[in-house]
Amino acid sequence: MGNMINIVIDTIGGDNGASVCVKGAVKGLENNKNVKLFLVGHKSEIDSLLNEYEYDKSRVEVINATEEISLNEAPVKAVREKKDSSLVVGLNLLKEGKADAFISAGSTGAILAGGQFIVGRAKGVKRTPLAHLLPTAAEPSLLLDCGANMDVKPEVLHQFAQMGSIYMQEVCKVDNPRVALANVGLEEEKGNAQVKAAYALLKKDESVNFVGSIEARGIPYGKADVIVADGFIGNTIIKLYEGLSKVILREIKGAFLSSFSSKMGAILVKKSMKRTLKKFDASDKGGAPLLGLKGLVVKIHGNSKEMEVISAIDQCVSFVKNDVSGKIIKGIEK
Amino acid sequence: MGNMINIVIDTIGGDNGASVCVKGAVKGLENNKNVKLFLVGHKSEIDSLLNEYEYDKSRVEVINATEEISLNEAPVKAVREKKDSSLVVGLNLLKEGKADAFISAGSTGAILAGGQFIVGRAKGVKRTPLAHLLPTAAEPSLLLDCGANMDVKPEVLHQFAQMGSIYMQEVCKVDNPRVALANVGLEEEKGNAQVKAAYALLKKDESVNFVGSIEARGIPYGKADVIVADGFIGNTIIKLYEGLSKVILREIKGAFLSSFSSKMGAILVKKSMKRTLKKFDASDKGGAPLLGLKGLVVKIHGNSKEMEVISAIDQCVSFVKNDVSGKIIKGIEK
Repeated sequence: MGNMINIVIDTIGGDNGASVCVKGAVKGLENNKNVKLFLVGHKSEIDSLLNEYEYDKSRVEVINATEEISLNEAPVKAVREKKDSSLVVGLNLLKEGKADAFISAGSTGAILAGGQFIVGRAKGVKRTPLAHLLPTAAEPSLLLDCGANMDVKPEVLHQFAQMGSIYMQEVCKVDNPRVALANVGLEEEKGNAQVKAAYALLKKDESVNFVGSIEARGIPYGKADVIVADGFIGNTIIKLYEGLSKVILREIKGAFLSSFSSKMGAILVKKSMKRTLKKFDASDKGGAPLLGLKGLVVKIHGNSKEMEVISAIDQCVSFVKNDVSGKIIKGIEK
Repeated sequence: MGNMINIVIDTIGGDNGASVCVKGAVKGLENNKNVKLFLVGHKSEIDSLLNEYEYDKSRVEVINATEEISLNEAPVKAVREKKDSSLVVGLNLLKEGKADAFISAGSTGAILAGGQFIVGRAKGVKRTPLAHLLPTAAEPSLLLDCGANMDVKPEVLHQFAQMGSIYMQEVCKVDNPRVALANVGLEEEKGNAQVKAAYALLKKDESVNFVGSIEARGIPYGKADVIVADGFIGNTIIKLYEGLSKVILREIKGAFLSSFSSKMGAILVKKSMKRTLKKFDASDKGGAPLLGLKGLVVKIHGNSKEMEVISAIDQCVSFVKNDVSGKIIKGIEK
């Protein structure tokens, strides 16, 4: 039991309800024999959902929490006041050391606020970025910060680079990850004051494989493994990715329906097209960890299905096993 | 001759050489009987290209300028030192009042620097944004600033909103254009310090139809006519647009070639697909004016063909005829 990895799953807050969480949890237990899960939410509902499955009962604990935090609530206020919400109860398990990781499909704002106020930043960490894998024509790139921190200093971007580099190396097994700074041009003198100063810091840091700036047009080609940006830029990038791929996909579908011959053609290209377009669905790359907290908090998409829950569990196992938190703290102390 | 609109075309600097400029110029003269053109560049080359066409010789003047400013040169230095470059000679015609507008496919940095140092800002204008039409699923949206100004104050974003609104109304004939602020969320309290302060200014300004914030994911749907951002964000948006549409298009082409049946299907969907994807080519929306200068400077894409030259001429005519510069100055004085 000493090497057990304890993971909390918040079963409230996702668009698809507790059933996908429970289904994903049962599969996650099968895949990872050293995992114990805390399922937090409406106990009676979770219990009856669990009854549908065969699973190792010694590795599941259901914890009752009945309050819900909606997407429209002011996050900080909700986290402070709703003590019996699944989010707050779950994050407290992390804080008290009873769990190593926490997964939620709930409100991003509330998860960020809860991460900060309940779990807290690890020693030496200036800000905690939300790190998201972006689909590209090559391998996925880790983009951080995707929206947790506005207005950050250059030293914060420097830390994001260090954290992202460690994450890609340890969790995604990318050797010597290429770290790039999101910028408006490739030359060193390009950018705003914040980015220019961060460039200078990154250039001096030998612990990071800094490959210079990346222009937004280079991101979809997969020219870097880690892309560093402040939360405003990162959020703009990830949301434009999402919106533009969706709109282009919708327009293509419309084009297919525009004539008889294109409808016939669509039947023939459907399979290979689908594979291609799925590749660029940014919502489909699993969970986004909030790096640099005292415990691991992973945000999964609001409309996550059991597959995302399963891969988030795998992600947490890999994160905890490889002591990514410890390595991040060590990495940024240097 | 009193109502003649004088437009300079820089024939050096574009990827396709002087021939597309001359071809576009001749067509532009045909379309606009009240236009006179100054073609600046290698005189002998321009003269021999002009010889191929029938055109109203009284409305064309060729001006010799032989120096070239390459994309790799430091813009400010190049503009200061290369007095006989087509860019500097052309912009001086604008400065001296001999011309009303200037069109160039040359280095963006040099055009921005030349616009600032040679032409100069109009009275009351704090910063001059590069304004670009973005393709969307609905009508194109004007994005400004696309990269001319990093690190700007909230009052500058406010002015960008005023200028963009006037431009869309007068040049693109959009009635009461919806102006939105590029942001990370829709609620008023969202954003970084700069954007939150700009939000407050725009909310109070009754001369602008401010519709609030727009998230990047909403941009491709065409939810606003004018999108206001600082040059860092705007540049990120336009370049990601360009890169992502190109990569998705490339992947789709790859998917079409992946099997025999998809190859057959591709033949049938080709025509309607092409139309759809062309719609999202951000490089294909004509020229980007640098708003707020004492004269009109329009940057067209480096790889522009004669069509872009023709539409840039039309754009300049519309701009000058409707006294957009005058209206911008009046609009921001209020």
